[in-house]
Amino acid sequence: MKKKRLDEKEIIRIFSQALGIADLDDVAKVGRNLVFKADMLVASTDVPPQMSPWQVARKSIVACASDLAAKGARPVAAMISLGLPEEITRTYVEELARGFQIASREFGVKIVGGDTNAARDLVIDCSMIGMTAADNRMPKRGGAKPGDVVVASGKFGYPASGLAVLLKGARAQGAFRAAAVDSALEPKPRQAFGITLARYFSSSIDSSDGLAASLHEIAVQSNVDIKVDYDAARADGVQEFARANGLDAHELVFHGGEEYEIVATMPKSLLPRARATAKKAGCDLHIIGSVKKKGTGRVTSGRRLLENRGYLHFS
Amino acid sequence: MKKKRLDEKEIIRIFSQALGIADLDDVAKVGRNLVFKADMLVASTDVPPQMSPWQVARKSIVACASDLAAKGARPVAAMISLGLPEEITRTYVEELARGFQIASREFGVKIVGGDTNAARDLVIDCSMIGMTAADNRMPKRGGAKPGDVVVASGKFGYPASGLAVLLKGARAQGAFRAAAVDSALEPKPRQAFGITLARYFSSSIDSSDGLAASLHEIAVQSNVDIKVDYDAARADGVQEFARANGLDAHELVFHGGEEYEIVATMPKSLLPRARATAKKAGCDLHIIGSVKKKGTGRVTSGRRLLENRGYLHFS
Repeated sequence: MKKKRLDEKEIIRIFSQALGIADLDDVAKVGRNLVFKADMLVASTDVPPQMSPWQVARKSIVACASDLAAKGARPVAAMISLGLPEEITRTYVEELARGFQIASREFGVKIVGGDTNAARDLVIDCSMIGMTAADNRMPKRGGAKPGDVVVASGKFGYPASGLAVLLKGARAQGAFRAAAVDSALEPKPRQAFGITLARYFSSSIDSSDGLAASLHEIAVQSNVDIKVDYDAARADGVQEFARANGLDAHELVFHGGEEYEIVATMPKSLLPRARATAKKAGCDLHIIGSVKKKGTGRVTSGRRLLENRGYLHFS
Repeated sequence: MKKKRLDEKEIIRIFSQALGIADLDDVAKVGRNLVFKADMLVASTDVPPQMSPWQVARKSIVACASDLAAKGARPVAAMISLGLPEEITRTYVEELARGFQIASREFGVKIVGGDTNAARDLVIDCSMIGMTAADNRMPKRGGAKPGDVVVASGKFGYPASGLAVLLKGARAQGAFRAAAVDSALEPKPRQAFGITLARYFSSSIDSSDGLAASLHEIAVQSNVDIKVDYDAARADGVQEFARANGLDAHELVFHGGEEYEIVATMPKSLLPRARATAKKAGCDLHIIGSVKKKGTGRVTSGRRLLENRGYLHFS
């Protein structure tokens, strides 16, 4: 009899229950304006082979920077713990160091220390302290209210398309190819969007587990139903790319993962002020759906009920 | 031509230089009283096979708790990132969770979140925020002055003896065996010692890289010479255990590692107050050496020059 493998959700449930943590995966508030987050990158599962060492190091910082941004928090300091394979070369280590340097400048976070270890995998754990604005209560995943609009910092489907190009030889040209591949190799956390707009959010999350999973997380934690507009959420060119390669565009947009857009809800009445703030900060603000009613955490797109399925380890 | 492997010190040097961090390995000060530290445990290199899963989880918290204590900092919050092999069982995950629960209570640290991933190794990264007392400047590794005494929270040699029993079948009986094996499987960070006494320290470190390496770190960073008293530093029974098993007691005491005593220096004039504070806190305070003069970072024991050698990954 083959034992059923544990999936990531079950593992998270076991730890959350033992430690009394409601949202193990979310940013933790540890002081008045202080937040804390950690994210581990494992090269054998999280890194496409085309990713350069400096991009790997940079990417290990992206998840924390993005999670903090979704909560309106500016990074203060980061720690980097490294598990390095014994056969690692000096050049590789120097390139990793260069990637941390690049990330430190790009995301405005001081890397203040770390730890190095021998391991079978290349493992990078980034932990980050951040600070929310003084007048900010931190938006959580629960908090969406019926009547709210669902907003996002960008549109969806590029990273999954990029990974299809890099890992499965899907074909794409020109600007679409560049944008898709770039979003997979050098994801951009939406710091300006989150830091300037968080004060308007009733709930928020980053979409690193995929759009559908992120909306489900908000819907379940907030006990509401959410309606998402597929056409408004879909990035330009994804439909055509999917058709040309026999892929499912719906899958690329909703269940892709490794997407670092911020997804949030806010009262409709705050939209004009949010738009003005976004414009001033040079950010796009897309309306991609609405919160329908007190519910059971259902997410629909048109007549379709979206599955709560995104990228999960151990599956 | 075989390439020379990078050792841990070279790797730390590359990252420290790229990121402009003086002490990559030390606790980082990130606010007035706020400190930050991370430590990664990799089961394939850091865990003896006799260690139970709950002890593995507990131990992954010890290093941060110990490092903070050496700086006089009380834990505030911890994040746990996990890399878990795909074949991990539910029982193992539940036992890990129980170990985190035990550590959380024992060390007084709230575990506020985490991250889970699939990896080839079992990897646990603990990052911890702590707080020093309001009137405390944080003792660094540099700061020892000629004339200072070297103090420690305990004596040395148990963990290396315990690992010799567990990993090499060395023989030991009764109380010595229990103390040695216990120190290897369930190391005790010296929180009360560090938190109550840090205000007296001119420099401090925990001895997790071994006593000799820790003293060298203080001597080099402080630009002083240190004299250590082998008889005062050696734990009871280590000499006899070494003799009975054909081992080198000097090696067990000085170059063992995985030892979580706090080693610190302080002006001789503060000793009476430090002793009174230690007594009140129920802690031992051992004088194990003295700071001799401005120097070049030499550490001697009697006429012997101690090598700067402790536990290093990649070697």
